[in-house]
Amino acid sequence: MPMFNVYLPAGRYTSDEKKKLASALHRALVEALGVPTGDQFCVMSEHKEDELFIHPTFPDLKRTDRAMLITVIHGDHRALEQKRKLAELVTKYAVESVGVAEDDIMLNMMPFHVENFSFGKGLLQLADKPPTW
Amino acid sequence: MPMFNVYLPAGRYTSDEKKKLASALHRALVEALGVPTGDQFCVMSEHKEDELFIHPTFPDLKRTDRAMLITVIHGDHRALEQKRKLAELVTKYAVESVGVAEDDIMLNMMPFHVENFSFGKGLLQLADKPPTW
Amino acid sequence: MPMFNVYLPAGRYTSDEKKKLASALHRALVEALGVPTGDQFCVMSEHKEDELFIHPTFPDLKRTDRAMLITVIHGDHRALEQKRKLAELVTKYAVESVGVAEDDIMLNMMPFHVENFSFGKGLLQLADKPPTW
Repeated sequence: MPMFNVYLPAGRYTSDEKKKLASALHRALVEALGVPTGDQFCVMSEHKEDELFIHPTFPDLKRTDRAMLITVIHGDHRALEQKRKLAELVTKYAVESVGVAEDDIMLNMMPFHVENFSFGKGLLQLADKPPTW
Repeated sequence: MPMFNVYLPAGRYTSDEKKKLASALHRALVEALGVPTGDQFCVMSEHKEDELFIHPTFPDLKRTDRAMLITVIHGDHRALEQKRKLAELVTKYAVESVGVAEDDIMLNMMPFHVENFSFGKGLLQLADKPPTW
Repeated sequence: MPMFNVYLPAGRYTSDEKKKLASALHRALVEALGVPTGDQFCVMSEHKEDELFIHPTFPDLKRTDRAMLITVIHGDHRALEQKRKLAELVTKYAVESVGVAEDDIMLNMMPFHVENFSFGKGLLQLADKPPTW
């Protein structure tokens, strides 16, 4: 069950922008990993300057006060090329949707075997067959 | 060190319900994985509708506005049957404790080797022996 | 891209203390893992007593109402001795910087292959070579 966590600087994104950002991340996931369009799970939170610490330039980048940290849990059957595509599209669509700079998007992917995911009803829906998406 | 993160829709659970939910998750952990009863570590946070995005039906479920996302870190020595039991009991006890629907509980398990866990004092208490629970 | 998440009890740390704590964690990371000094990424959040559940003594510890949970994502090429050092120094520097007790620092390390990390620009900066730090 791919799931994003997005850690935003407080007060730098409107409610409408947060919704557009969620859609952008989901679109990236669908296109890069081929997950079904219904597979959308995302949490955001805002953090003031005493709770969000992002280096302004490391390594050779130029970040602004709109920089955000993103993590995403996904299945560990993904090839490197799919991950590369995911990072590329997450950034591309985030930039397009809310006008953030491409240096302001940091992404940590967290792969786990799909037997670890329950979509509901207390079942591990993907545990008993090879991944189909 | 098993640790839950629970992402709740804002304003849909009372303070008392959040405490009951934490107890329910802990009970599931103890019964499904056989961890000691003291092994309770859980964080919750509330997120408004512009910060929590959960698909209403994917895949073939019927979620409500009380749907929540849960992650849990645990040792990677757990067999599939233990994980299955954990997902089952997390859902069962959450339903019993706060009256949420069983389709409203999504769970991502995040297994790591127990050498990665420090309970305090800056020590990796479980690093030097095979897992005992 | 090492990234800390720090879950604090609400109202127990001043803004200045949170900044000192972030610096302490970063210093531990640099010294224990040898990451470049620019490699600083940290998120904190505060949680009231109905959202933060930490056992007061398990296993054989004595925690206070300032106890915190910390997770850190890092590269999975780290040897056990480096992880041991990280847990030791995270705790040592947290204690020194904000006067918290050493029993009050819990740490879960989350190792992933460095091909999963994007520092910006939608690129996986560390995917195409062996880890250099």
